[in-house]
Amino acid sequence: MSNVQEQFPLIAAIDLGSNSFHMVLARVDQGEIRILERLGEKVQLAAGLDERRHLTEEAMQRGLDCLARFAQLIHGLPQGAVRIVGTNALRVARNRNLFIRRAEALLGHPVEVVAGIEEARLIYLGVSHTFPDMNGNRLVADIGGGSTEFVIGQRFEPLTQESLQMGCVSFTKQFFADGRISTARYAEAYTAARLELMSIETGLRRHGWQEAVGASGTIRAIGQVIQAAQRGNGEVNAEGLDWLKRRLLKLDSVEQIDFEGLKPDRRPIFPAGLAILEAIFDALGLQHMTHSEGALREGVLYDLIGRHSHEDVRERTLSALMERYHVDQEQAERVKTKALSALEQVAGAWKLDQDWHRELLGWAARVHEVGLDIAHYHYHKHGAYLIEHSDLAGFSRQDQLHLALLVRGHRRNIPLDKFQEADGDTDTLVRLCILLRFAILFHHIRGTQEMPRVRLEAGERHLDLHFPEGWLAANPLTRADFAQEADWLKRIEYRLSVH
Amino acid sequence: MSNVQEQFPLIAAIDLGSNSFHMVLARVDQGEIRILERLGEKVQLAAGLDERRHLTEEAMQRGLDCLARFAQLIHGLPQGAVRIVGTNALRVARNRNLFIRRAEALLGHPVEVVAGIEEARLIYLGVSHTFPDMNGNRLVADIGGGSTEFVIGQRFEPLTQESLQMGCVSFTKQFFADGRISTARYAEAYTAARLELMSIETGLRRHGWQEAVGASGTIRAIGQVIQAAQRGNGEVNAEGLDWLKRRLLKLDSVEQIDFEGLKPDRRPIFPAGLAILEAIFDALGLQHMTHSEGALREGVLYDLIGRHSHEDVRERTLSALMERYHVDQEQAERVKTKALSALEQVAGAWKLDQDWHRELLGWAARVHEVGLDIAHYHYHKHGAYLIEHSDLAGFSRQDQLHLALLVRGHRRNIPLDKFQEADGDTDTLVRLCILLRFAILFHHIRGTQEMPRVRLEAGERHLDLHFPEGWLAANPLTRADFAQEADWLKRIEYRLSVH
Repeated sequence: MSNVQEQFPLIAAIDLGSNSFHMVLARVDQGEIRILERLGEKVQLAAGLDERRHLTEEAMQRGLDCLARFAQLIHGLPQGAVRIVGTNALRVARNRNLFIRRAEALLGHPVEVVAGIEEARLIYLGVSHTFPDMNGNRLVADIGGGSTEFVIGQRFEPLTQESLQMGCVSFTKQFFADGRISTARYAEAYTAARLELMSIETGLRRHGWQEAVGASGTIRAIGQVIQAAQRGNGEVNAEGLDWLKRRLLKLDSVEQIDFEGLKPDRRPIFPAGLAILEAIFDALGLQHMTHSEGALREGVLYDLIGRHSHEDVRERTLSALMERYHVDQEQAERVKTKALSALEQVAGAWKLDQDWHRELLGWAARVHEVGLDIAHYHYHKHGAYLIEHSDLAGFSRQDQLHLALLVRGHRRNIPLDKFQEADGDTDTLVRLCILLRFAILFHHIRGTQEMPRVRLEAGERHLDLHFPEGWLAANPLTRADFAQEADWLKRIEYRLSVH
Repeated sequence: MSNVQEQFPLIAAIDLGSNSFHMVLARVDQGEIRILERLGEKVQLAAGLDERRHLTEEAMQRGLDCLARFAQLIHGLPQGAVRIVGTNALRVARNRNLFIRRAEALLGHPVEVVAGIEEARLIYLGVSHTFPDMNGNRLVADIGGGSTEFVIGQRFEPLTQESLQMGCVSFTKQFFADGRISTARYAEAYTAARLELMSIETGLRRHGWQEAVGASGTIRAIGQVIQAAQRGNGEVNAEGLDWLKRRLLKLDSVEQIDFEGLKPDRRPIFPAGLAILEAIFDALGLQHMTHSEGALREGVLYDLIGRHSHEDVRERTLSALMERYHVDQEQAERVKTKALSALEQVAGAWKLDQDWHRELLGWAARVHEVGLDIAHYHYHKHGAYLIEHSDLAGFSRQDQLHLALLVRGHRRNIPLDKFQEADGDTDTLVRLCILLRFAILFHHIRGTQEMPRVRLEAGERHLDLHFPEGWLAANPLTRADFAQEADWLKRIEYRLSVH
């Protein structure tokens, strides 16, 4: 399937989840996936499973009504361009074939009920394409409506997958069916989840992980409530969970759950989801879990275009960004090389010796001109806008903000206020920015001239540049550039001396 | 020279003006010019002409110092990729060859002193590539340091060119050399300008024009002072000129000219520039003059790549924009066709019968998806950002803002506050936006399905859609889309009914 990108300009993935159905429609563009549409509806298929594990006619109809709307959008797509995966509710429903036949008739594409392990693999594929590459292991957890999947992997390779029969919809039916909340019920749900987890926790802990990522709406919703209470930045943390549980247990029924940041339709399944997530945190000793959007759907799309490559996602993302915005690649490379060699010379004095310093500076050098494709006027601001708002697969939110900041500050004034607002060490970011500016001015002439060796010396609030004797006099643009640069740096209380 | 774009990826234009020297460095990309660098220095060459019309050694040196800085940047560009034009100060300087030889030695490219008529042609070429196409004639005036050029043209064709020996630097030397301001001196300068203009005003008036555009820094600076006093939007108008003259004549010397919006280095030549511009307004009976940036330099670049085409600049600009941001062209065409046919049906009821209504709606339909190339999340906002900030040759600032507004409002909420802030008729813009949204929802499925005929009926605050009997029931996505749309429109107090 590796040439799907040529075969199909448009591809779609539908995820028949136990809680919600989702569809994404995307365009394949030079091996990159560009999302065109996202549709999602809270169908609650799992809530429609009766005691005999039959989907009720009513639940099936909710699902089919939703699919009829999705169907209209993929009507003309050829076979092979759409992949439809059913997860736990369809795995367990005894009458699933009835539903699948009707769904296939509606959609015109085959519906595949995937095993929990395959679901986990697809989720991991989605996460590994959208999260930064890292050394070490990553744990991914996805609390679905009917099941919960766990994967530990390294880069693009899942090392182990697990799937448990617990989910926010099925646990809601089991423990909070009438919408009443009590400490006893919550404890029951929590305990049931801990019992489920016992079978896998030792195995997972043996692999170990450096980072935990949560997929699925339950984890996002909990992160958002914690964030709305200013106890986190969208991620889930152990203190936030504990605070949230105490808040929840003061209520008597799900109708009272009007937590800021929570959509009303999430209320009924919120207690069960919280109990499961708390159990996961405790069983695995987690302190912190970031969130990934739409992992399963993204994974299905990446699987569809057959991309399981091992290259660094961030490198690929930056290259695609540079190509899309017609960046002068040679200039970018020159600036990058110069910036990194300058960094080496001052790394000691300016405490810029960590890997991320080098990485961030190198990235910024590569993309600092992307905004030129919008307009020359204020192009550093346009570049910062693009970098802040683009889907940059592999980059964390913080990476993107820091990168946008360096691009914003790469010419004209250095907006110290924006550097101070950023979540990070202001001095470090400013110094990286100064080095970037140096490299850009140094290569202002874009490679049409042999440039000399320059020695850099840095101190707490100053940077000295030593050009070869006589060179600056012979190269008046460079001299004028650095004279002006000294004025810009003076405004942020750095002294630039040129010798 | 029509294949310069293949030969030279980088091109540059240098304009050795009588007041300032400017350079632009650009990349040629699919026949489009993308500016990479703009450099400019106030050299005041004309101020260095002595009584014998010799450039003083000092003035030449100022010019050569500036060119030495420019030179470094174009050092590696091949012959043919750089065009250097000298204007009036060099036309009149008796020792120009001395300066030109030294300049050519520095720059490595030939320096061409162009006749006033050729200068006018290049200015017109620059303006016609950056201003909207219009029916009828356009007058372009450029007050230089030593001469003032006039062109009247239609689209890309200059019909008549004139060049007068008056400029803000030479008039400053003649009437305000010691920096003192008085009513008598101003009257002398004004009268001298009127005398110059007498030779051409009848001829120009015979051609007539629908729009007057000013190029050059003098006109921009006057527009900016008028704007800073909130008496205009950057353009020059007759009332603003009159107010500015009265303000100026209260001062005794140019050092006192600390008008808001005016750069200090403009002060010495401000009185002369104002007198010339006032004379032009009076001689030609102007009320209003918009401003075009860098017309001569842009004209030289367009001349260099050999583009004198007659196609509509705006069409070309939009096509290039759509290509750059990978817009689904077929979808854009479908939406455009539908939006315009919808417009026809309601044009009477909603008073949308002017040409610009059709144009704006058609443009918006073509570009509404540009933001998708940045990210799916909030893509309508990204699209609006791109349209607001891009250099869109041929579009006026107001066009761009209106277009950005329609793109911003094409999905999800319609930001009524932003529509109200816009300089324009809020109701008209909102109604165009509603029609755009209709066309987009109608073609939500992107051409994979035959769509029916829909009849539209509009009233003061409502829009009725009549679908064929039974069609909506069979097409639930469209039905759901319009049900949701009715909710969005309700928020801005429009009623959408679907039958």
